[in-house]
This record gives sequence, structure tokens and C-alpha cells, in this order.
Amino acid sequence: LAETAVGVREMSKQLGRTRVRSHIQNVLIVTKARDNRLIKLTRQLALYLMLKPRKGGRGMVVYVDAQLRTSRRFDAAGIQAEHPELFAPFPQRRASNSSFSSSSSKADNDSISEGQLRYWTAEMCSKSPHLFDFVVTLGGDGTVLFTSWLFQRIVPPVLPFALGSLGFLTNFDFADHESVMDNAMDNGIRVNLRMRFTCTVYRTVGGECTRRAIKKGETGEIMMKNLDKGGWEALESGYPPHDGKVGAKDKEIKCFSTQPVESFEVINDLVVDRGPSPYVSQLELFGDEHHLTTVQGDGLCVATPTGSTAYSLSAGGSLVHPEIPAILLTPICPHTLSFRPMLLPDSMELRVCVPFNSRSTAWASFDGRGRVELKQGDHIKITASRYPFPTVCADSQSTDWFNSISRTLKWNERERQKSFV
Amino acid sequence: LAETAVGVREMSKQLGRTRVRSHIQNVLIVTKARDNRLIKLTRQLALYLMLKPRKGGRGMVVYVDAQLRTSRRFDAAGIQAEHPELFAPFPQRRASNSSFSSSSSKADNDSISEGQLRYWTAEMCSKSPHLFDFVVTLGGDGTVLFTSWLFQRIVPPVLPFALGSLGFLTNFDFADHESVMDNAMDNGIRVNLRMRFTCTVYRTVGGECTRRAIKKGETGEIMMKNLDKGGWEALESGYPPHDGKVGAKDKEIKCFSTQPVESFEVINDLVVDRGPSPYVSQLELFGDEHHLTTVQGDGLCVATPTGSTAYSLSAGGSLVHPEIPAILLTPICPHTLSFRPMLLPDSMELRVCVPFNSRSTAWASFDGRGRVELKQGDHIKITASRYPFPTVCADSQSTDWFNSISRTLKWNERERQKSFV
Amino acid sequence: LAETAVGVREMSKQLGRTRVRSHIQNVLIVTKARDNRLIKLTRQLALYLMLKPRKGGRGMVVYVDAQLRTSRRFDAAGIQAEHPELFAPFPQRRASNSSFSSSSSKADNDSISEGQLRYWTAEMCSKSPHLFDFVVTLGGDGTVLFTSWLFQRIVPPVLPFALGSLGFLTNFDFADHESVMDNAMDNGIRVNLRMRFTCTVYRTVGGECTRRAIKKGETGEIMMKNLDKGGWEALESGYPPHDGKVGAKDKEIKCFSTQPVESFEVINDLVVDRGPSPYVSQLELFGDEHHLTTVQGDGLCVATPTGSTAYSLSAGGSLVHPEIPAILLTPICPHTLSFRPMLLPDSMELRVCVPFNSRSTAWASFDGRGRVELKQGDHIKITASRYPFPTVCADSQSTDWFNSISRTLKWNERERQKSFV
Amino acid sequence: LAETAVGVREMSKQLGRTRVRSHIQNVLIVTKARDNRLIKLTRQLALYLMLKPRKGGRGMVVYVDAQLRTSRRFDAAGIQAEHPELFAPFPQRRASNSSFSSSSSKADNDSISEGQLRYWTAEMCSKSPHLFDFVVTLGGDGTVLFTSWLFQRIVPPVLPFALGSLGFLTNFDFADHESVMDNAMDNGIRVNLRMRFTCTVYRTVGGECTRRAIKKGETGEIMMKNLDKGGWEALESGYPPHDGKVGAKDKEIKCFSTQPVESFEVINDLVVDRGPSPYVSQLELFGDEHHLTTVQGDGLCVATPTGSTAYSLSAGGSLVHPEIPAILLTPICPHTLSFRPMLLPDSMELRVCVPFNSRSTAWASFDGRGRVELKQGDHIKITASRYPFPTVCADSQSTDWFNSISRTLKWNERERQKSFV
Repeated sequence: LAETAVGVREMSKQLGRTRVRSHIQNVLIVTKARDNRLIKLTRQLALYLMLKPRKGGRGMVVYVDAQLRTSRRFDAAGIQAEHPELFAPFPQRRASNSSFSSSSSKADNDSISEGQLRYWTAEMCSKSPHLFDFVVTLGGDGTVLFTSWLFQRIVPPVLPFALGSLGFLTNFDFADHESVMDNAMDNGIRVNLRMRFTCTVYRTVGGECTRRAIKKGETGEIMMKNLDKGGWEALESGYPPHDGKVGAKDKEIKCFSTQPVESFEVINDLVVDRGPSPYVSQLELFGDEHHLTTVQGDGLCVATPTGSTAYSLSAGGSLVHPEIPAILLTPICPHTLSFRPMLLPDSMELRVCVPFNSRSTAWASFDGRGRVELKQGDHIKITASRYPFPTVCADSQSTDWFNSISRTLKWNERERQKSFV
Repeated sequence: LAETAVGVREMSKQLGRTRVRSHIQNVLIVTKARDNRLIKLTRQLALYLMLKPRKGGRGMVVYVDAQLRTSRRFDAAGIQAEHPELFAPFPQRRASNSSFSSSSSKADNDSISEGQLRYWTAEMCSKSPHLFDFVVTLGGDGTVLFTSWLFQRIVPPVLPFALGSLGFLTNFDFADHESVMDNAMDNGIRVNLRMRFTCTVYRTVGGECTRRAIKKGETGEIMMKNLDKGGWEALESGYPPHDGKVGAKDKEIKCFSTQPVESFEVINDLVVDRGPSPYVSQLELFGDEHHLTTVQGDGLCVATPTGSTAYSLSAGGSLVHPEIPAILLTPICPHTLSFRPMLLPDSMELRVCVPFNSRSTAWASFDGRGRVELKQGDHIKITASRYPFPTVCADSQSTDWFNSISRTLKWNERERQKSFV
Repeated sequence: LAETAVGVREMSKQLGRTRVRSHIQNVLIVTKARDNRLIKLTRQLALYLMLKPRKGGRGMVVYVDAQLRTSRRFDAAGIQAEHPELFAPFPQRRASNSSFSSSSSKADNDSISEGQLRYWTAEMCSKSPHLFDFVVTLGGDGTVLFTSWLFQRIVPPVLPFALGSLGFLTNFDFADHESVMDNAMDNGIRVNLRMRFTCTVYRTVGGECTRRAIKKGETGEIMMKNLDKGGWEALESGYPPHDGKVGAKDKEIKCFSTQPVESFEVINDLVVDRGPSPYVSQLELFGDEHHLTTVQGDGLCVATPTGSTAYSLSAGGSLVHPEIPAILLTPICPHTLSFRPMLLPDSMELRVCVPFNSRSTAWASFDGRGRVELKQGDHIKITASRYPFPTVCADSQSTDWFNSISRTLKWNERERQKSFV
Repeated sequence: LAETAVGVREMSKQLGRTRVRSHIQNVLIVTKARDNRLIKLTRQLALYLMLKPRKGGRGMVVYVDAQLRTSRRFDAAGIQAEHPELFAPFPQRRASNSSFSSSSSKADNDSISEGQLRYWTAEMCSKSPHLFDFVVTLGGDGTVLFTSWLFQRIVPPVLPFALGSLGFLTNFDFADHESVMDNAMDNGIRVNLRMRFTCTVYRTVGGECTRRAIKKGETGEIMMKNLDKGGWEALESGYPPHDGKVGAKDKEIKCFSTQPVESFEVINDLVVDRGPSPYVSQLELFGDEHHLTTVQGDGLCVATPTGSTAYSLSAGGSLVHPEIPAILLTPICPHTLSFRPMLLPDSMELRVCVPFNSRSTAWASFDGRGRVELKQGDHIKITASRYPFPTVCADSQSTDWFNSISRTLKWNERERQKSFV
């Protein structure tokens, strides 16, 4: 048994560092399409990738933001005038990358007659991710988060270039883009599979249900029964009884049916807070259908290890290496002195509920986006996603993360005393 | 690739919860042999296990502490007088439990002619762990730590009974010992494989070596070369250069050969601190041969997830569920404001070095025992152990841990406002 | 010099514990006028105070909330029917309490012909605080905060009764109200002068001003000049220069005139945060006209020692005894690892500015009330108030505070290990 | 009443910033007498002070460490050879500085015939502090702490010069020593009166005493009676009773007489910890004779505001401006999750006791010095000292402290994102 455990550990380790050598042909470039400076750099990068001949004879197929189609600064017409050969129809191979491909689609067929410069839309990213072998981002960490937002299901490997200072997620310097890209094409890449969460919002429907939940008198734990296939029962808060009053009776509590209404993939965190409400939020937290605790305070941050350097850190969470399979539970300004942050196994299914007796509603945001109001009785289910986010890592990957936290957070730095001569 | 990752996650999850049904025959009881109250309970438990007939016809073989052989309170003679049948030679099966067995030894042969009541010594635990199918502990968490100390290599499954309040590791109440033991025998057990660390102490030997290490001018990183097979080079501390003085030169630094002198398995933590020294300790921390950071303060705690509720918690670390494969790095009263606790993958190999230029030595303790002085140039290597510590878990295991932290730490508890009338 | 310091310390100590014996005649009762349960208790307390004869011969004059004038539950008509003597004109003494009195007003004259049961309005509290010798609150800490809100200038001594659990501010149990009130009348009271802050909101007016501020090149400090009497200049944020680039030039920066628009007295805290904005707030903090630091994060809490058990505590601040003359500066989820909470002397004048280059506006709340938006260029000035909040303390006052934090926060409590047998 | 409070606040504020213009004639220089580099600088400073003529006609009288009398590097003989005029008898004025002088002593008489270069000993500092009008320190913060150690009673104003980086206490750069000294002589100085603590060690004497203490059944509080004038009763620990078991009986507990044995003045902190013991320390904390709490963990730090940037900060305490009259109570790695650091009024008298039932002894250190073992029954009393430590402040004093914490601790600093052009 123990040997198997060692084996699994070894396997996990290897998995995070696989070098993938594949035929990369279709590259998508993500950037802020409204930033003039970035448009120029996008043009420069696109030209480099399209013009430099690769194994297949021609350069690569590059997808840029559809908003650039008519951008004067991007000047697609100018590219066509200067490099007409890029616009000759490009023979598309049938399947892009074995790990990420799926069946061919209408989009594939359309692209057969296109040239090397193409335009992507958000819909293509969400519906046909297999069109792209590779994603390059230009910008800061925000651009990488936006990429995660675009690809709500399968995500191609992402190579993030930083402009200016390197960030947590942007560990390649744009100044080196030519050598970095050439190296990736020639020698393959290593990817980190960063965990994402699938966050599903459940809302109360219909009237009071006939099903019931039991609040155990002795432990205060709430036992669910008759769990619906699709829905789930939101509950009044369950308080641990005081002073070990043994013998308290079990109690049936009313509950409502809920059903899933929308779902988000996050790479950093889900934050549930009181929003503009002046009142403290009260949230009930369940893990694998058991009541874990009641959160009273400004809210709760549920973060991935990747997100451990984001909001969770501000709220007092530990720094967690992205390779660790864990869920970070970090309270935001909690009302108790003893609500120390906690890490749970990534196999656990969490639910954050706004109880029926809450004074106010709560607000959820997903990687800082998509602020959604949760009414009394609503809840969010959080599970490790089936669609991780693969980021290309530098060869010095094992210390990359340390460098990024020292650089960006000044982690454990102190002015060294200068000595006097 | 992503599917494989999901598979591995699932496998890890299952692994931690395997139900083992095996023929348990030889049970070892660990307790504080000097506590009179505990001796009485040990006697009671031993009699229960030996007398109740099991599948094989007779009861079980029970090993108690060799110190009890002559204890008046344990009164072995009284047992023999009352139950002579227990002292009839007991036919020993050849291999105890397939997962934990190894080749037969002299100890095995000796035991052939013994009865059901036998005596264990520390040496038997460390050299012949396969003699025991099962370990029962009576006492608090300290007794479980002591059991880990006894079994420095393979550990049989451990079932910890608490006397009085349940602890983090002692999740079975002695009051229920009969039903708990019967259930384990009849239905098998589930075990948690708790990670341990192997901590190896390296000490400086001989004169200055001819090998060299390079301190990179630009990054301050220390690159090792000519790493010895058995030993390792301890270093002067590597400072990140100030103010981005680019172009600083690489520098050879003197280093000494070190060699391993002793090794400890810990289930909670390794703590390196300044001991009685009034001076701040300065420690250099390396991960996979790269310099990670310099620790200035009272010291450093390197803890397993199991140890996250022990010293690491006092020093400000997060609570970490025991199933998460991670190493906790928690500074003890650090001198910088920004030394937030950190979690590293359990696949990383850590080294904690006392640099040559340190003003004082440091002291290491292993699960709070075995205080060892580390001189300038010495270091300790920490790796995930090949010998995890299997603890029997209750069926409600997933919430066991939450209950223990609420109960023992009052985690996130607050006096609820009593309302009037 | 040193002896003087000792003298001042002693004097401060005495001051916080003066026993005031005064002729208390006019008592104001504050409670939540919409809570039926509280209305009944208010009636009960008012009758007790009015009926029990005091030194002057008759009972006391009691002011209740004007909303109760027509309350069926309070039933003023019923009181009049049962106790007509209470409604005989009551000879009002000329000055209530020497420390808190001021010149007589129209309200005084009106009251000459009234009986013992009178009605207060918010306007009377803010404009004629000298009408009341004493305030009694019924409810929780919130009711005491509301009383502070009512009395924006001089505050009569406040005796807070708790219903149910005692709180931080409500240290008298309503169950004892008869003996507590009698004791206060007969033996006088001791009061704690709790510090309040005066928070003044300044808003940008008019166009760009002709005055200037200087940003020092070398230190990054912003030096103000031509400070207007009434207004103050809000600033672009001042960054400490990087890497000790010595010789950076001073720079004039544009600034706008601001003028005070409203002012609040707070007893707990001023909180400036990002409100519903998804963006991090950026605030510039000045102390005595010098730039102290830039706050990036969810916001900033500026708390009195009394407020150290409220929001500041949730945000990570220390517990501060109410007698200490200090201002607590506690960041809310700051973006840096090193923003440790800080205490400043109560003699310092703080300003929290929303800089012109801030991405978003900020929101201020005063003791959790009066949410006000701060636009770019606006700021809030915080100074120790000239109007402290006198609360009656129990005789065991020195340990009162410890009891309240142990009771309410479970400060430093841990489940003691129960021993077995 | 309120106006008086405002007056006291104002007075305290002024007091901390008094400008003292006095006739400074006798200067003492403190430095590490074993550091060769420092000896040279001491010589340079001494010569400057002795040679430059002041109002009185000649230069100043300078006291250097008696260890330098025979130092080759200091070369007193060389000074005499070059400047024989310095060794002419110097007419000593009768009283140095009115605030710090006392009656004349034998030392005074001795000095009449001496020249301008004199030698100080530790005994002179402790017994005749009035000999010195002014102290100059050369070195780091440690040298200032050493100065506090030398002057256990009255302390002359201290002007600390830093060599290399400025520290918390060393806010003058030695490079400017000529202008700083001239300015101090010509224009007088401003001093901060930094609070010190008087820490008195009490040890158990004799057999069991006949006096008694009462442990209140209902509250767990321990009431002292028959407090000895000189001694004090150390106690068994007092536990708050569980679960509000009302009606528990009062209990007499045995106690021993203790008597004071030694006393230390500290400017930073008193630290009581477990020293080399592997066991957790258990300390009982009393404030003004009431039991406040039980400290379980590595120990307790009791710090002045000046010490808030030293060990207290490492242990998690807040930053406290040196002008605030408060005592910082910061637990060291406490065993409870809820032991938030706390600030108490400087008028409170604290006692830290090692209870009789403690498993191990504890160790106390005073500003990091004088490690003393506390046995079961011993305790330490901490009170604000009658002998504050006056340090000279720069004119920009109000922001001095902020600069020092930003500079030395990188408080609230973050790498600003460099933007890409």
C-alpha cells in the first residue's frame, strides 16, 4: 500500500512537468484590444510568427482579436500589401494536438480556405478550443485571467508574455519573445496543469419542498436526505449546540429546492462577500454534504493554489505552490479571533450557502469578474475542474515560483544593514 | 493529459481511504508504562483481546511493554493464575499482513513457543515491525507521536484510543474500546496514510574541500557543483544583491564536505531554532538544490499536514487537511514583516543549513524530541518519507478532522449572543 | 522633566476614573423604538425612575423616544390614568449638571410646565444636550453607537443596560436595573471618557487652484504649502522613489482646493473601503500634513481604542484598552505582505485622500453608518474629538474590559483537556 | 471634565517635544570598546568635541570608555603629545544640568583636577549619572540598548549616531556628526522621553506561608489577600470554570511568600520564554492584582512602544508610536488560536508568574540580556519606570519614526509594477 502511495506521488510530480513536443501550427494571441501600445506589439509578434518558416515549410497560422480586423493601428491591409503570401489559402491539418483535439466542426471547414492571419471571437474560444494549438498572451496577469475566462472548457497551452515587470502568471519577458517562441517550436514545451474550480450557482426555485433535512441535536450537524439529482437543498444555518447540552433532539428543518443556473471556471478564486451591504455576511459552508462551519464577517475566499498570491494572500492566507492539489479557504475579516485559514483536499466538494435567516444577501465574484447576487437560499458549489489551465513553464520552473513571489511580493525581504567602512 | 490528471487525483483520493480486511492476530499496545492508571487499562484491554475468541478459534496475541513484565500493578502472574490457557504455545502464522510483512527473522522463531501474552521492546519495533499486525495506543496525542518514534521504518496500522478528551490523532474514545476493536476485527479497517518526513542530519567533516560552489553575481543564487554522492556542501549564505546592481560577478565560495550522521522519521514536524542562544538564528533554506530564502528569526518549522495543528499553528501556519500532499514551511518569529507561511509540494527536497558565518549554532528537534545541536556548516535534509504512518479512521472520516479542530482548537467559534426573554 | 511626565501619567489615570456625584434629575432612555419587547421594558424602567422618590421629594424626569408618544404598547394614556401625579408640572432646576450645562434655551422654558414624562427628539439631543443629566440605553452595543450618533457634540454620562448577553459597551445587566440605578443616584458614578474621532469630509471645489504642492525628488514626500484655512489640498499620490535614485528633482504637482462639507463623531471607527467597486482602492494617508503611506487593498479602518474590538479586530488589529490615547490604523486586506497594523498618538491629525489618479472612488462609513462616496480628490480629516463619550463604569472597572473580551471574543481560550477517571 | 482631558492630552503632547537649552559641558561617548574601527571614530569625535571652543572658552569635557585608557589604537598618549592643553585642569561647574543633577559626590571632587579627556566606568554611570550632561553613542541600536543598561536610574539625554544604515533608535548619521553636535550645543535639543519598564524579579522564600489566596468558584478569578509589603504571593494557576458551572465554591489555595531579588530597567522588552526546555511554558498573568489570563506557548513578550519594532513585531505585535503610553502584551507562538496581541495602559502593574504546577521553569531576558531562570513560584513585576530614556530627536521628529520603519522594515512596501514603454 505504502509503495503505491509513493508511486502516485511520483506520478503526480512527473505529470506537472511533462514536456510536450507537438506540431504547433495555430497560435492565438490574447491582449487588451483597446490598448494602442499592445496592438503594435501584437502586430509585431503576429508577423514574426507568420513569416518565420517552420518545419511545415510556411510560418504559423495566427489568430488575433476580431476587434483588430478594422483597427487602423493594427493595419491588416498594410500587412496584406507587404506580405501577400500570408493570405494564400493555408492547408489545415485535420487534428491539431492529440490531447486537446475533438471532432472536426463547421469552424474547421470554414478555415480551410483562409490564409495565415485569422480572427478569433469569444465564441470560437468557448465552442471550438481545439482550433488553437497554443495561446500567447501579451500583458499582465489580468490578461491571463481573461484567457481563462475565454476558455471555459478545454484550454490550449498558454504562454504568457509580460510587458514590463514579470508577474505571478506572466513569467516570460516580451523582450525575449523571438527566442522563447523559437525554442517552444523546436524543442517542445513543459506545461504546468494549473487547477481551476468549477463554480456552479444554484438558486431557490418553487415553494417549500416536501423533502427534509435533519439537524442533529447532539452535534448540530445537518444531515441531508433526498438529495435531488440536479438540485440541492439550501438550509437554515446549523449551530453547534452550546455547552455540550447532550441529548438535544434532532429537528427537521424546512428547505427549498434549488437548481443550477450558471457556471464559471476560475483559476484564482471565488469570493463571496457582503458587497455594498453594511451588514456582516453570514454564510454556511458545507464540505461533501456535511456542515463545516458558519462564516461571519466580510466574506469568504475560496482559492486555488494559483490564487494563493491574489486575494487570499491579502486576506491572510498562506502562499501555496501551484503544484499542490488543495483548496484554500480564507475568511475575509472574520468576526471570530480563531478563524485561521485552512486548506482542504481538492477532491472535496464545497458549497457556500446564504442561509434563509441571513439579514442580507451576498455577492459572488469569479476571478474578480461577473459579480452575481446570491439571495437567501441560494448557494454555490465549488469543485476541482475537469479543465485545468496549462501554462508553459520556463526550464528553471522549480524556482520560478519562488522568484516570482520574491520579486512581486518582496516575500521575506528585509533591508540588509549596510555596514560602515 | 488533463484526463490523466483527473485520474491521478481520483486515485490519490481512493488511496487514502482503502478498507483493509486482513487477518489481524498480533496486536501491540503502546502506553506510558509509568502511569499507574494506564497500566490498569492496558491490562483490561489486553485481557479483552486475548480472551475473546476470533475466527482462528483463540483470541489474539497481545504484546505489552516489556517494562510491565515485572509490574506489580500489571500483575502478569495474576493473569497466568486466572487464565492459564493464554499461556499455552500459540501457533504463529508465517506472514502477518502481506503489505507490511518481510522475510522471517530470528524473532519469529523465538515466538513460536510463546503464549498469547508477550512483551515488546523498542528494538523489536525498529527491527521487526512485521511481527505486529496492528498497534493500539492508549493515552493522548503524545503516545501516538511516541509510536511514530518507535517505528522508524515500516509502521503497522495504528488505532489510537483517547483517555478523556479526544485529540487530533486520538479519535477513538477508550470507553468504546470493545465495540471499536470488534468492528475492526470483523469488518476490517480504513486507514489514512499520514505522510512522515525523513530528516537526515549532515555534519561537516574534514578540512576545506577542493570542490566549489558558485555564487551567481546577478541573482545571488548559489549553484552547487560536484555534489558528492553521500554528502552535500553547506554554504555561506547567499544574499540577493541590492538595488539591482546588474553585472555583479560570480564568486567561488568555500565549502566543506558534509556527511549524513543520523536520521529521524517525524509525523508532526522538524523544528530548527536558536535554542538557548540569545542571538537570532540565521538559516539558509534550499529546495531541490536551489537557494530559496534566508530565515532570520527564532527559527523555522517544517511540518507535515498532520503537524499543521501542532507547533506550526502556534507559529501562524494554516490548518491543512492531512490528505493534502504538502510540506508546510512556517517561520518562527521572523525578523521580516513579509515572511508569510508557505506550502511546498511533498516532492521537493528541502535542506536547512546553518551557514558558516552564523553567529551562533542552531538546535533541531524532531516531533519535539531528540534535541540535536547543529554547528556552523551542518545541515538537515527533509524529504517525504517512504514510510507513511497508517492511522485507522472512523467511518465518518471526512468530517473527523473538522470535528477535531473545532473541539480542540475552538476553531472559528464565538459566543453566540444570548437573546433576552 | 521626568517627574512631570510621571505626574501627567498619574493625572491621566485619575481622570479616567473620576467619581461624579451630582444631582441627577433628567434621564433620557434610548432604545430601538420599533422593538415591541423593548417598548415594554422601557415603560417598566420609566415608571421605576419616575415613581421612586429621590432626594428632591419626587421621582425623576424621564425622556422617552417621541415615537412612543402614540405607541399603543407604551400606553402613555394608561400611565396617566394610573399615575396622574406624574403629570403635574415639575419644577425644573436652572442648570442640570455643571460640567455639561450651557445657557438656557427655549426648550428649557417649554419644559417648565411639563410633568415627569417627556419625549425626546433627535434634534433635542444634538442641539440641547444639557437638558439631560443622564442617558440610559436599553439594547445591545448598537444602541450605544446610536446614542453616540444622536449626541454629536456634548454627551451626558451614558449607562448602558444589556438585554441578554453583555457586550463590549453594555456592561450592566438589565436584570439588575433597580439596584444599579439606585446606586448611581445615591453614590454617584464613575465615568470612562471614551475618545471619539471627529471625521470631516472635504470635497474638491472649483477649478485647478493656483497654489502648489511640492513632491520632493529625494524622499518622495509631499510638502504642502499655502494651506488654506478652511480647505485643504488633495494630491496625486506620492511614491517613494525606487532604488535610492538620489538626486531626483522636486516636482510641483497640481492640486485642487477642497472644503469641508460634513462632519461626524465616531466612537468606534471610520472605515474607507472600495464599496461595491471591483477594483482595489488606493488611498493616500497623511499625518500632520506629511505623507505616511499609500494604502492599496480593500481599504482602511481608523479606529479608537473602544473600536479595537469591532471591525479593526476582524481586519487583524490588536486589542487596545479603552484608556490608551491612541489611533488605530488597520489596513483591510492590504496588497502588501508587510502592512502591519499601527498605532499613532491621538494628537496626530490624519487625512485619508482618494488621489486624482485613482481608478475608482471610495466609500466611507462612520460607526457603520452614513455611507458616503468619496470622489477623486476628496478626503477625510480625522482628529481626536473635543467631545468624548462618557460611559458609566462598574466598580470593578479595571477588569471589566478583560471580562468582556474573554466573554465575547473567547480571547485566548482553549478547551482544557479533560482527564480520564 | 472633558476640557481637562483635552488639556492633559495637549500637555502630554508638548512634553514629548520640549526643547531643552542647557549648558552642555560633559559628554560621555558609548561605543563597543573592542571594535577597532569604532575606536578610531571615537578618537575622532572626542578630539572634535574637546578642541572646538564653546561658549565657556574651551571645548568640552569628554568621557570615553575606561577600557580605552590603555588602547594602542585610541592612543591617549598621542593625543596628549599633540594637544597638551586638553590635559590642563578644567574648572568644573558645580551642577551640570538642573533637571538631571543631584548632590555633589566624591567623584565630582576627584574630577576637579582632571583635564578634558576622562574615562567612564559602568559604576560611574549607575551611581553618578549627574556627572554627564549628555551621552553620544556610536554604533547600532544595540549600543543604545547598552546605554540604557548602563544607566539603570537617571539617564542623561542620548544622541545616537548610526554607522552605516540608520536604525530605529539611531536616527543621526555619523557622517554629519560635526553639524549635529554644533547645532545641539548652539540651539539646544528636543528630547523624546521614551518609556522604560522597571522589571523586578521576585523569588519564593521560606516554607508554605500562612497567608491565603482565594480562588473564586464562580469566576475563576484569584483574589489576593494579605499582600505583603515587600513580597507577593505566587499562585497556582487559576482556570476559568467550564461551561458556566454556576455555584462552584470558592477555594483557598496554598501560596508562598516571595521577595524581590533584583531589578532591571528595559527600554525594549521583557521576554519570558521556555528557554531550552522542550515543554511549553505556562505563565499566569496578573494586572493590578487580578488574574488576566494564562499564557500557554513559547512565552510572552511585554514591550514598550519603543520595543514594538523589536521582538514584539516578530511575534506578531502591532507597530506602536513611541509617544503612546502603553504596554504591549504579545504572546510568543501561543497555543490558542485566539490570543490576539493586546495593549494595556502604562499605569497598570503587571505580574508574570510561573505557577507551582508548571511542568518546567521559565527564562526571562531584559532587552535581550541577563537571562535569568524563573522557578516554580517565582514571578516578575513590570511597571512603567520612573526613569524614562531621553533620546534627542531630529527636527522632523514626527515623521522620523515613519521613515525608520519604512526604511528598516520595508513596512507596506511593494514592488511597483514597472510599465513597458
